[in-house]
Formats: sequence, structure tokens, C-alpha cells
Amino acid sequence: MLEQLKLQVYQANMLLPEYQLVTFTWGNVSAIDRESGFVVIKPSGIEYNKLQAEDMVVVDLDGHLIEGKYNPSSDTATHLRLYQEFKEIGGIVHTHSPWAVSFAQAGVEIPAAGTTQADYFYGDIPVTRAMTKSEIERDYEKQTGDVIVETFNVNGLDPNRVPGVLVNDHGPFTWGTDAKNAVHNAVVLEEVAKMTYHSLQLNPHCIRMDQTLLDKHFNRKHGANAYYGQKKSMMDGVSGNVKN
Amino acid sequence: MLEQLKLQVYQANMLLPEYQLVTFTWGNVSAIDRESGFVVIKPSGIEYNKLQAEDMVVVDLDGHLIEGKYNPSSDTATHLRLYQEFKEIGGIVHTHSPWAVSFAQAGVEIPAAGTTQADYFYGDIPVTRAMTKSEIERDYEKQTGDVIVETFNVNGLDPNRVPGVLVNDHGPFTWGTDAKNAVHNAVVLEEVAKMTYHSLQLNPHCIRMDQTLLDKHFNRKHGANAYYGQKKSMMDGVSGNVKN
Amino acid sequence: MLEQLKLQVYQANMLLPEYQLVTFTWGNVSAIDRESGFVVIKPSGIEYNKLQAEDMVVVDLDGHLIEGKYNPSSDTATHLRLYQEFKEIGGIVHTHSPWAVSFAQAGVEIPAAGTTQADYFYGDIPVTRAMTKSEIERDYEKQTGDVIVETFNVNGLDPNRVPGVLVNDHGPFTWGTDAKNAVHNAVVLEEVAKMTYHSLQLNPHCIRMDQTLLDKHFNRKHGANAYYGQKKSMMDGVSGNVKN
Amino acid sequence: MLEQLKLQVYQANMLLPEYQLVTFTWGNVSAIDRESGFVVIKPSGIEYNKLQAEDMVVVDLDGHLIEGKYNPSSDTATHLRLYQEFKEIGGIVHTHSPWAVSFAQAGVEIPAAGTTQADYFYGDIPVTRAMTKSEIERDYEKQTGDVIVETFNVNGLDPNRVPGVLVNDHGPFTWGTDAKNAVHNAVVLEEVAKMTYHSLQLNPHCIRMDQTLLDKHFNRKHGANAYYGQKKSMMDGVSGNVKN
Repeated sequence: MLEQLKLQVYQANMLLPEYQLVTFTWGNVSAIDRESGFVVIKPSGIEYNKLQAEDMVVVDLDGHLIEGKYNPSSDTATHLRLYQEFKEIGGIVHTHSPWAVSFAQAGVEIPAAGTTQADYFYGDIPVTRAMTKSEIERDYEKQTGDVIVETFNVNGLDPNRVPGVLVNDHGPFTWGTDAKNAVHNAVVLEEVAKMTYHSLQLNPHCIRMDQTLLDKHFNRKHGANAYYGQKKSMMDGVSGNVKN
Repeated sequence: MLEQLKLQVYQANMLLPEYQLVTFTWGNVSAIDRESGFVVIKPSGIEYNKLQAEDMVVVDLDGHLIEGKYNPSSDTATHLRLYQEFKEIGGIVHTHSPWAVSFAQAGVEIPAAGTTQADYFYGDIPVTRAMTKSEIERDYEKQTGDVIVETFNVNGLDPNRVPGVLVNDHGPFTWGTDAKNAVHNAVVLEEVAKMTYHSLQLNPHCIRMDQTLLDKHFNRKHGANAYYGQKKSMMDGVSGNVKN
Repeated sequence: MLEQLKLQVYQANMLLPEYQLVTFTWGNVSAIDRESGFVVIKPSGIEYNKLQAEDMVVVDLDGHLIEGKYNPSSDTATHLRLYQEFKEIGGIVHTHSPWAVSFAQAGVEIPAAGTTQADYFYGDIPVTRAMTKSEIERDYEKQTGDVIVETFNVNGLDPNRVPGVLVNDHGPFTWGTDAKNAVHNAVVLEEVAKMTYHSLQLNPHCIRMDQTLLDKHFNRKHGANAYYGQKKSMMDGVSGNVKN
Repeated sequence: MLEQLKLQVYQANMLLPEYQLVTFTWGNVSAIDRESGFVVIKPSGIEYNKLQAEDMVVVDLDGHLIEGKYNPSSDTATHLRLYQEFKEIGGIVHTHSPWAVSFAQAGVEIPAAGTTQADYFYGDIPVTRAMTKSEIERDYEKQTGDVIVETFNVNGLDPNRVPGVLVNDHGPFTWGTDAKNAVHNAVVLEEVAKMTYHSLQLNPHCIRMDQTLLDKHFNRKHGANAYYGQKKSMMDGVSGNVKN
């Protein structure tokens, strides 16, 4: 079942080592079929160079195993909370990519400091508060999803316009319209973390970009007035998610 | 038309991933045929591994499409302003290379701190002022070119001797005698940004090099008294743009 | 003799350049056969691209040469002290991996700052005190082992739960259940050194993670209640030492 | 003439891109035949991927061209000064390797902070004073050699025990018993520059290592009592210059 989605999730998982976002198997990608409510996710602890499309695990939104010979990723409950609450997203990525983790461990958000971030994230990339003792000890992975959702609610953020977050003392989660797009956003997050780390060392003050410039860059790639890339009818061989 | 120039621009674009100056398709290269006034530039949003020489787009200096099945790069208007004002340049590169962007986001110029920079840039690599609200909202890409030109005029800089700039909160533009030479300068800019970032952490004060040393290194590679490399008659297989 | 163990030690040594943990031959891996008390270790000064499984050297726990045409690694005495004192470990790695050395040269431990470290190390990765003049001048390599053991004793650390250390002004030693697992821990140590270096620059204060989160992550991968990865019966093609 | 030496110098030059010490052709290697007093050096401005052993240029110690169809490296006069004054060295390397340049631009020496440096350099790697206006304007490349020699004389350094230097606001020169050994030391210098940069950020004070530890590590690899590596009779396939 869901053979096409399994293939997409498999291919998106294989992009993680290709883009050097993972050491060993410290990452996972999932995608959801909104019609059935089934989620396809990487199995837990399988090395990338042995992974196959048929190894992908299918669970429902409550976490029941629907299909698969392996256990799903131990982070599955976090993915499910995000699919439940962020109703328009189609794919999720979790990694321990090093620049993003550096910010997460410091408990520092990635400020919107330039157009690279503005092209994909409408503002800062937030960091969650530290989780409480009881949140960690009971249903830890589900609670991780809850604290992400809380971060977006408290700060009035739209997950469709800010497609990623840093979990405090842990690492990044990103999402997107599908699995591949979520990986794309994971690459962007890692790249802007690297750039902005160095900008903060060069100039610790006034690093945030102008709001008008942020609006301009985000909107020339998103929404009705976007003018990046090629017309949809010319999309064969053309990436609608990239700019140049 | 301009088949030779299209090939050169295509090849120069393909150097961007080779020199690791771009993530995804965050970059573009153009070149101008000064005789016809036509500019050849990368199409917008085409992935590098699918790009072909015949995909290059031809526009005139006012931005009218002359030839091409794709939309030109969304940064085309910036390129055109530079060709209009910097009358001796033949090629332009824009990237989001990470070390250069780190300085651009910090709003900090790259000071001339050593002979690596002096071999190619006669002094600091400037950073533009932040653009105003109205500049961003109207003709943004053209205004980006204007603010680059303003930076050179206000500071009395010669674009033939300082072949690059950092656009505030955005990233680098470099140029050169042709498309390949502009890429060469983009690589130099990224490399000196990396080196000088670390020098500034080691010694935040008195980082600028001596003027005599700057003169010496720039002039031993440029102008009538240059003595780097091989004689012109020996240039087959020899790079006139490099030193050792 | 010990052909299987020699092959494992050889393969583990070859992982060091693969994971970019060594420049030239600045590293070595050993493993112990607890039954015989024999230790298999890399020969001294042989380049990796010329190394063969049959070149591995066999010594006993007192350092007597048992088999081998080459001299054993000059660090052999350090390895032996660790096997003598840390009775459950099966393999040891020493490298000069750059991020770990950066901390070792600074005399700074790697604080437990996030879940990446907590998944493998139960707390900070300690740094030894500086060695005394007499320790350096007499039996230096054995004394290096002694000061590692002292560091664990003085701080009440369990080498099975903190599988690595930084030797002051020198570099990292890691260990594990076998040679490959010790290399795995060497990779983790290098990766968390890199991440936490940057976190410390972003936020020099309060970098240590919450104890409950540390417990949670360490224990979901180690001990009776671990729930990472796949069941043991499914371990073919599955890494029991990784997470995702 | 000197066909064997030309081959060695060619091969040593080709190690520079292999070890990622050069961008474009920003580097050169030479070697001297002490019997004839002839120096073999890379030609100026030839790209590495087009370089051939027969392109190497032969000059005498006064800089007269003895053989070769190309101009020698523009840095030749610096090499010659070092061969004249440092009478036991056999090969010289100059690069713009980025970590070394970062220190050179900052005018900061690389302190002996750990055993990695102590294995090859007996103490700090010095930085020259800034050159004067007249030194730069007249015989610049020869004067660069003079200021290196002065640095060693003023500080009482032995070039056989400290096989490298940082030229202020420029970059590193290293040397060794032959061309390949000089490249080896160039790699070490770049690696310790990277490590010690980070150590200095972690702990700006008391970064220098203990003198006894420095003595121990330098002497276990150099001189009559060295005990690294294999016996000379076993040197086939064994590097006498590396440790493990």
C-alpha cells in the first residue's frame, strides 16, 4: 500500500546523507497521505546504505502500526503530533545537523538576518522552551511535538510560513508540502544557521533584517504574487522551490 | 545567436557548484556582448544538473527578452544596471556563498587584510548601505543595482580594481572581464571572507594591511608593470589570472 | 592467531580515514581478546593506504610482543592500561581529530549540552589534568593511561557510560564494546565537540542540559529499558548502536 | 638534467591540491640539489591540472635560469634566500592555506598548544614582523626571505627544528629535508592552525603547552633517541615522518 509515497519517503531519506545533514543514522523523514490519514516513516535504526523503499513503515495518526516489518522511528510520536496540528503540511524531517544543533543547544533562535532565510522562512526560526521534568518522563516524543506546537501558538507563528523549529537542547525539525520539500527546508535551515552564526560573531547587535526586505523576499517566492522561477506549464525539469 | 557567449555563460554557471559557491540554485552568471549590447544570463529556477547551454536567455540592456524559452534570472535587472554603469566589465556573478553572506548579513565590509585579497581587489570589499523601504518595494532588483553603483561612487572606488561588493543583508556580486573571470573573483571573495573572518576573531584591531604591500601585490598582477605568470605568447595552457 | 580479531581491528583502523578522523596516520585502533588477554593493535607508522590485516600486531597485557613483524603503535602502553583497568571494554581508539583536540588543547571538558551527546555519553566528556614532569619523563605512554584512569576515579565516572576522554594538550581516547563501537564513539565525540564549540560561542553560560533530559536520552538507548532500534532477532542489517 | 628531482618537485606540487592547501594555483614547491646548487621550482601561473614534470624550472642559487621553457614562480627569490641561509633544508613550500593565512593576517604566531604541533615543530610557529616600505618596494621577494631569516635569528630559532613560518599579512612558508617532507610540514602547519584557533577561542589564556611535554613529543620523533615508527630496514612502505 502507498507504494508511491513509500518511494518518495525513501528517496527523501536518502537525501539526508547526500546533503550531509546526518552522521550515522541521526535523522528521519516521513510523509502523510491526508486522505487515509496514514503516515509513512523511516524504520528505527536502519543504516542508510542498507535502507530500501520497502522498509518504510506505515502508521496511522494515533501511532498504530498499519504495515511494515520494522519498528518505526522512535521519533514517530513527534511527527504525528505535528501532522495532527499543522494540517497543511505533507512531510517532516528531523536531523541532528550540526549548525542547527549548535543553536538548539545554546537555546538561541536563528534570527532572520538576510535574504537567504527570507526566501523560505517568514521571520526568525524559533527555539522551543526547555521541556519540564514531567514532559520528559512521560510520553517524551509526543510531548516534544506538543512543545513545538506551543511555540508556534504562543508566538503567533504560521507553520506554513515558518517551516521549521529548533527543539531546545536537541535539534531541528522542518516540514513542507511533501517529504522532498521538507528536506529542502532542512538544508536551508542548516545553511542559514551556519551563515548567521558567523554574522553574529562579526556583529552581535542589530543582526535582524529590515521587515520590508523580509516581506519582499518571502513574497516574491510565495503566494499569488510570486514571480520566481518558470510558469507552471514549464515545470518539467524546473524546480518551483528554488530561486536564482 | 551568440552561441559562443551562451556556451561561456553556461560553463561559468556550472563552475558555481564545482567551486561549492551555491546551495541548490542560489546563484547566477551572465555575460555581455558589448557590440550588440545583448546580455546572456541563466534562466530562473532551473536546477544546475539539468541546465544546458541552449537554456541560456538573451536580453537587451533594457531587459527586453531577445531569445530564450525560459524566464531570465529574477536578478537580471541588477545585472543590467551594473553593465550599464560599469562599462568595461564583461561578466557578472551573484551567489549566496556562505562566508560572503556572513559579512553581508553583519553589514561589515571585508577589510584588505593580506596579500590574497590584494592580488585581486585593490582595497576593502565594500558593503552597501541598507536599502530604503521605497527602494525595496519598487523595482527592487534594479534598485539593488543602483545601490551598488552608489556605493562605488560615494567611496570613489573603481569597479575595474575592486571587482565585487556585498549587498547588505543579501550577498555578494562579483564581476570581471568575462563570465569565467567573474567566477574567479567570486571564488577569491569567498576565500578571503573565510580567512579574514578568522583573522578578525584572532585580532579585532589593526587588521588592515599596509598600503605599500597592497600596492605591491595588486600591481604585480595588474597593469603595465605586472610580472606574474608567463608571457602572453605562452598563454596556451597558462592562466593569466592566477598567481603562484 | 586471532585472525578474526585482526580483521576487525584492521577494518576499524580503516574507518578512521573514512570518517575523516585522521590526518596522515595520526590515529590507532586496538581490540582485546579477553579470554587470552591478548591485544591486537595497529603497527607504528604504517600509512593507511598500505595497511593490511596481517600487519596488525599482537601483544599481551604486559606489552610483550606475541606476534607481528612490525613494532606496535607507540601508544600501546596507554591502550594496555585502559584494558587493565576498564575491564568491560573491548576496543580503544586514539586520534588527533581536530575538534576534540581543540578542547584538549584548551584544557576544557565537553559539557553535555544536548541529546546528541546524551545518546552516547552519560554526562560531560572529561579532560585529564596536565601530567607532571616526572610522569612525562618516565613511562610516558603508560602514565597517560594512568592519568585517564585517575580522571575517572576522582570524578566517580563509569567508563561504560562515559566511553571517552580528552587527554590534556594531546587529544581524545574513546573505547567501546569492540573496535568498531570504539570508532563509533570517536565519531560521536568529534561531532559533539564541533557542535558544542559553536554553542559555547553563541551562549557561554548555562550550556549544560537538564539532567532529566540526559537520563531520558541515555536510557532510551542503553540498559534494560532501551527502546531504540529493532529487536535483536531483527539485527541483520540493523545497527544497534545508532538512533533515528 | 635533474630529472629525478624534477619528478619529485612535480609530485610534491601535485600534493598541494590533494591536501586542499591551495585554491587555484596559490602555491608552489621547490627542492634543491645541494651538490650542484641548482633549485627546481614550479613555473609561474601554470594551472595544476595542466602541470607536468617537464614544466619544472631549474635555476641556480643566484636566480639565473639554467633550464626550462617557463618563467619560474614569482616567489623564487624567497625560496633562494632560504636555501642560502638554512643550509640543511632540501625542499620549500609556499601556500595561501586558509587557517595559516588567518594567523598571518592577524599577525599572530601559532603557539605550541599540544602534542600535534610538538611532534613536528619544536615550539611556536613564528610570524614575521611587517615589512618596511623600502623592503616591499625593492627586491620584495628577496626581502621576504630576509625577514624570515631575521625572524629565526632574532628569536634564536633553529630552522631544522621549527620547519615553518608565517609571513605577516601574507601566508605560510614551510620546509623540510626534501620537497615531500616540506609538503608534510605544510599540512601539519595548516592542521595545527585550525586546532589552535579554536583552542584560543575556548581558552584565550594559558594555551601554551608544558615544556616537558613539548620536549617529550619532539624528541620521540626526532634525533638519536626517537622511538616512533619502524626500524630503517623496515622502511619499505613505512613512513618515517608520521606517527601513530
